[in-house]
Amino acid sequence: MADFDPANHPHRRYNPLTDEWVLVSPHRAKRPWQGQSQAQAPQTLPAYDETCFLCPGNTRASGDKNPDYPGTFVFDNDFAALKSDTPAHENAEPLFQMHTEQGCSRVICFSPYHNKSLPELTDSQRLAVVHTWIEQTSLLGQRYNWVQVFENKGAVMGCSNPHPHGQVWAQQHLPTQAKRKRKQFTDYFKQHGCSLLNDYAQRELDYGERVVRSNADWMAVVPYWAAWPFEILLLPRFEAQSLTELESTTQQSLADIIGQITICYDNLFNTSFPYSMGWHSAPFDRDSQPEWGLHAHFFPPLLRSASVKKFMVGYEMMAEAQRDLTPEQAAQRLQVLPTVHYRDTCY
Amino acid sequence: MADFDPANHPHRRYNPLTDEWVLVSPHRAKRPWQGQSQAQAPQTLPAYDETCFLCPGNTRASGDKNPDYPGTFVFDNDFAALKSDTPAHENAEPLFQMHTEQGCSRVICFSPYHNKSLPELTDSQRLAVVHTWIEQTSLLGQRYNWVQVFENKGAVMGCSNPHPHGQVWAQQHLPTQAKRKRKQFTDYFKQHGCSLLNDYAQRELDYGERVVRSNADWMAVVPYWAAWPFEILLLPRFEAQSLTELESTTQQSLADIIGQITICYDNLFNTSFPYSMGWHSAPFDRDSQPEWGLHAHFFPPLLRSASVKKFMVGYEMMAEAQRDLTPEQAAQRLQVLPTVHYRDTCY
Ligand SMILES: O=P(O)(O)O[C@H]1O[C@H](CO)[C@@H](O)[C@H](O)[C@H]1O
Ligand SMILES: O=P(O)(O)O[C@H]1O[C@H](CO)[C@@H](O)[C@H](O)[C@H]1O
Repeated sequence: MADFDPANHPHRRYNPLTDEWVLVSPHRAKRPWQGQSQAQAPQTLPAYDETCFLCPGNTRASGDKNPDYPGTFVFDNDFAALKSDTPAHENAEPLFQMHTEQGCSRVICFSPYHNKSLPELTDSQRLAVVHTWIEQTSLLGQRYNWVQVFENKGAVMGCSNPHPHGQVWAQQHLPTQAKRKRKQFTDYFKQHGCSLLNDYAQRELDYGERVVRSNADWMAVVPYWAAWPFEILLLPRFEAQSLTELESTTQQSLADIIGQITICYDNLFNTSFPYSMGWHSAPFDRDSQPEWGLHAHFFPPLLRSASVKKFMVGYEMMAEAQRDLTPEQAAQRLQVLPTVHYRDTCY
Repeated sequence: MADFDPANHPHRRYNPLTDEWVLVSPHRAKRPWQGQSQAQAPQTLPAYDETCFLCPGNTRASGDKNPDYPGTFVFDNDFAALKSDTPAHENAEPLFQMHTEQGCSRVICFSPYHNKSLPELTDSQRLAVVHTWIEQTSLLGQRYNWVQVFENKGAVMGCSNPHPHGQVWAQQHLPTQAKRKRKQFTDYFKQHGCSLLNDYAQRELDYGERVVRSNADWMAVVPYWAAWPFEILLLPRFEAQSLTELESTTQQSLADIIGQITICYDNLFNTSFPYSMGWHSAPFDRDSQPEWGLHAHFFPPLLRSASVKKFMVGYEMMAEAQRDLTPEQAAQRLQVLPTVHYRDTCY
């Protein structure tokens, strides 16, 4: 039998954060694609759009009027998935378990500009977004046990308004992914006496192979177990459990690495690169949790070009995630991209 | 505080098959949608397409020529995600765990007709598909521990060829979902002394509320914990662990219920209804596994119309699945649909 070649032989890799495996089938990248093409994001949008629910001064679906905000702007989602005044109720029958949930859903406009997504903002504008993520996490963490900061970017990721914005949903119970991560972090800590993500960050820095961008405080790596083609895991290079612990320097360097990651993404296919991203800070239901590592995920769907995405469908839903290029191949393609946004070099 | 109203108050429901929760936010169905529209499937396709890789007599990308098949037709995927001759290799480091995987990936053409999906076939043509599912499961189960029969239907579900077809991927290791289900089935069996899905089927028949279609041997239910808007769980009304156990009568009644489900789906939005579906027969690595219940999932993405789907994105990827209408509301909408395919009533 031939020697194992990760870029040629089907294999499975283990995701220690979620206790899931991913099937890697690198040879499959060669298959022809006759399936669906994604509509591309328009290349130019106006700085202000009078029909946009999120632009400053405009009136939203609810009838509320946005202020003339100069920086970020946060408001309660007009169609919130979570509400604070939901009555308590539960059913504990094994096959019909349910309970009501209290929480809130907010929208975070990144800036007044309708046409500036994270990679197109200045460093100080990106810092304002970082401040808002931290502030919301801290505020909502006083009331709820789980605070989920996230961004859906691009129509292909279900974003219903092109005005650059993220969201924060906070709730009483730990959602499935959070519970699963707590278990994985705790098991690792018990066994090894240190934090899983700290160990992992150190190992990846040593290897270098999958690290896409970094600065003094942060690193962006295509994780060994990446499911999405160009998935990135953003990790601090220092001990941290929550966004709320960041200090002035690490906030600034976070704004820097967010710029680096999103510029690199846009440069991959010279398009406004769609993704869902989100932060996992430690839950607010315990005081000390040294096993937890602060981190953010970027899950981008594009595979071959600005219009061909990876579908996580039949096999992936019924069995487990499957990918067509190795994480190392993805990292290498991202590593060599220019650090200046493609639109700034076109003109 | 007001009384709990499942159709109005955000709540979470537990999926005992996967140990995951889903957030139900029924009041959110009212929000306006300005996001992406899905391209609709063409309403008419020819019975034979000379450019199709799957039609009888045509030459595939690999250069192989399809026979003039009269019924179903199975062949090894020309770009298989799994292969039988992969060399053995593994790495057990906790944060870099991997192992190679042996297996195979096959394509199952449902019929020679380029334009007849499952709801448009005759009962005897559907029975041929059932026979092929069983035959492949049985054949591949002699060699591999897990046999995943599935279908991606529609471009929105990553189907790259409109010629109606499914797939079967078989492999040595139990994939993530199979391992998780085995644990859930086993735990339930230990605690209650009977099969989780048997118990569940009985309870749902008693309730009636979520049962969409049924016949003497099978039932289609929107499960209490459904994540996708019009998700269906297909269950036998008799004890069964695997497709390979079905006898002549239950094969025929299976063809019947598959027709009922897929016709009902097409009639919901008068469109060729996209979904990913798949079978979970018991793994082949053990002889007796009374805890396992044979079942199939249908995961359809459409939410409001033929062109507006549910996106499982930011919150869903980072936290847990979220849905906008209750499973009971979905079941009710499906229950009242005509049992004759909309295309057969148009003319
Ligand atoms: O094998 P196909 O039909 O070309 O591919 C489709 O189904 C596979 C199995 O669910 C997925 O991995 C692919 O992303 C999808 O496009
Ligand atoms: O709240 P939005 O942006 O309208 O909605 C979007 O994000 C939500 C949270 O990930 C999803 O549940 C929706 O399916 C998606 O369209």
